[in-house]
Amino acid sequence: MALKGNALIGQSGGPTQVINQTLVGIIKEARKHGEIETLYGAVHGVAGILSDNLVDLGNLSYPELDLIAKTPGAGLGSVRKKPTEEECMTILRIFQAKNIRYFFYIGGNDSAETAHIIDDFAKREGYDLVVFHVPKTIDNDLLVNDHTPGFGSAARFVAMAFMGDNQDNKSLGGIKINIVMGRHAGFLTAASVLARQREDDGPHLIYVPERDFDFDNFLQDVEDVYRRLGRVQIAISEGVQRGGQPIYSTGYKDSHGNIQLGTAGELGAFLADFVKREMGGLIFQKQLRVRADTFGYVQRSFPIQSEVDAREAYMVGKRAVEYAIVTEKSGSVAIKRLGDDPSSYASDTFITSLDSVARHTKSLSSEYISPRGNDITDEFKDYVSPLVGTLPKMGYIEGIN
Amino acid sequence: MALKGNALIGQSGGPTQVINQTLVGIIKEARKHGEIETLYGAVHGVAGILSDNLVDLGNLSYPELDLIAKTPGAGLGSVRKKPTEEECMTILRIFQAKNIRYFFYIGGNDSAETAHIIDDFAKREGYDLVVFHVPKTIDNDLLVNDHTPGFGSAARFVAMAFMGDNQDNKSLGGIKINIVMGRHAGFLTAASVLARQREDDGPHLIYVPERDFDFDNFLQDVEDVYRRLGRVQIAISEGVQRGGQPIYSTGYKDSHGNIQLGTAGELGAFLADFVKREMGGLIFQKQLRVRADTFGYVQRSFPIQSEVDAREAYMVGKRAVEYAIVTEKSGSVAIKRLGDDPSSYASDTFITSLDSVARHTKSLSSEYISPRGNDITDEFKDYVSPLVGTLPKMGYIEGIN
Repeated sequence: MALKGNALIGQSGGPTQVINQTLVGIIKEARKHGEIETLYGAVHGVAGILSDNLVDLGNLSYPELDLIAKTPGAGLGSVRKKPTEEECMTILRIFQAKNIRYFFYIGGNDSAETAHIIDDFAKREGYDLVVFHVPKTIDNDLLVNDHTPGFGSAARFVAMAFMGDNQDNKSLGGIKINIVMGRHAGFLTAASVLARQREDDGPHLIYVPERDFDFDNFLQDVEDVYRRLGRVQIAISEGVQRGGQPIYSTGYKDSHGNIQLGTAGELGAFLADFVKREMGGLIFQKQLRVRADTFGYVQRSFPIQSEVDAREAYMVGKRAVEYAIVTEKSGSVAIKRLGDDPSSYASDTFITSLDSVARHTKSLSSEYISPRGNDITDEFKDYVSPLVGTLPKMGYIEGIN
Repeated sequence: MALKGNALIGQSGGPTQVINQTLVGIIKEARKHGEIETLYGAVHGVAGILSDNLVDLGNLSYPELDLIAKTPGAGLGSVRKKPTEEECMTILRIFQAKNIRYFFYIGGNDSAETAHIIDDFAKREGYDLVVFHVPKTIDNDLLVNDHTPGFGSAARFVAMAFMGDNQDNKSLGGIKINIVMGRHAGFLTAASVLARQREDDGPHLIYVPERDFDFDNFLQDVEDVYRRLGRVQIAISEGVQRGGQPIYSTGYKDSHGNIQLGTAGELGAFLADFVKREMGGLIFQKQLRVRADTFGYVQRSFPIQSEVDAREAYMVGKRAVEYAIVTEKSGSVAIKRLGDDPSSYASDTFITSLDSVARHTKSLSSEYISPRGNDITDEFKDYVSPLVGTLPKMGYIEGIN
């Protein structure tokens, strides 16, 4: 006999450009199943459950849903919170009071962990509940998954931003440093490689947190590119590290032997300062501009979506409902890639355990990083390209450097 | 008898998303006129003329031109340089050697000044030359013009970035400060007002350089919005000032009476620090996130164009050629708006003197700024809206704060 009752959706962690596709995928699919009576949304995730702040999602029209799906940010509000034992008890009491039998939680590995805790607690208390974690993260660092919804659209923004900025850098020359999101995993920074359409296009150098950052190698790399092209565009992950410490906190020894440190959130300024100090002669002689931009939240919120990413984000929501109702068991929706040919991309979903995607994360594998650690390989291009979609084509006049 | 000879195009100053539309407008129109024999491009503006680095633009195919028109950045390379008297002599010698009779210089007020200097010099030397300045600037601060090519596309990026970031801010709450380009004029920052689709949408506060920044009023404004909405999204121009000085250099007196200063290029970090220090109690109590992003060069280079802006950028290029050939007199192409109804926008060009747009710039007029100096009026919305074009519509779930 099928588990019947109400359902609840929550969104958690950093929002993405397509997290509402997933929300709408769940809502539309839930409406097709008699097992789900009323569908509620938790306002700001578990925080909304704890304060009994739920909204009935039954009144949203299909045109409204289609608009919400295209809107960045978490339509229900989001939260960064892992419930305590005591809070789990409160949550369970509210689930009982509202007869919630299906709980869908959209988020990254921390949200999977939260879903896992609630699921465990319900089991221990003998309360029939199906909990599904639905994947989302621009960091692309969820275990088990080939890739995660949210990444493709953020990667699309990053690739397009680098394409435009490359033309800007080419126009006026100089050294340009762009800091890309990703505290631990370099996937998003690596996606900047898609901006290259010609051999001399930037980014000319790409640094990710998966490799120890070497200040001397970096200087040498920058100078090499400058000597070759007369300009340099650099992609650096906000999480670049040295021995596990952020590079601004380890600092660098300047030419007088003094250690120069930076502060959190100012990695771009710190690196621009480093380049100006240590390449001062060249910079003065050639009157080079050295500039740094930190892309910031616009990477995950600018209102553009990758087509594949939008479709998959919708699909994982829809599948979460199907899986929950068919299996009546808790789990997490995961994405696999079908085949390896980037020109005929296809993907499918499968069920993995909540535990398998909770807590831990994955990094950019070493085959995707060049031996010197200053570039990204063609293997990664093949991996990421279908997720980002067709990019605008740039026009060039021959003979301009 | 018509002036016959070769023509030269240069691009100058900060590039825009549509400066190549203007370039292509000039190239396509020049091909229609027998008066122009060979059309050259100056690589990096006057720097390219001085080093005799010119490219023949006759070989570019129409499909190539259409692609170039859609590409951000200066296709010919750009430069920030005003020629000296001696350099003007060199330029004139090269013009004579190459029989350049038409010179088109695309740029802002500094480029108009350069065009003016070269024009004056040729007149003094008795060399027949028609010089046309063609307007471009994301700052929208050229005199005589209703608005300038480049502004609409940058404003479109800013409005879209604020729309997405507003949804992000709504998702997780807190205080978000976004620094927008514009050292002297607040037009681009003011365009963030277009991001508002509902009453509670951000930006909730907008500060431009045209008003002295008041730290106490700012704090009061932020707290008021926070008390009302539980979150705050703020647009601030990079050029905000106090008594003509950048605010980080004037600093603010903290609650202990000590003056806190900032450094150039870190306005966002300076303001976030200010808010954290001075609203510490509230921020601690509510565990508020305070974040700042500086949008940076992506504002003028992200590969999107406003439709009206792209069309007008092309038009000013085309008209520059027509005016030059018909009048055989130097000048600058200017844009006027036909009628005041924002729902039936139309524009046209006219000729103004080089002198009239050189050197000086204009600011946001006071009718566009709210009396308290923390918001932008509906009059400005009517002014800017047609230049930016239709923006994506956001979807909302009722009852989410």
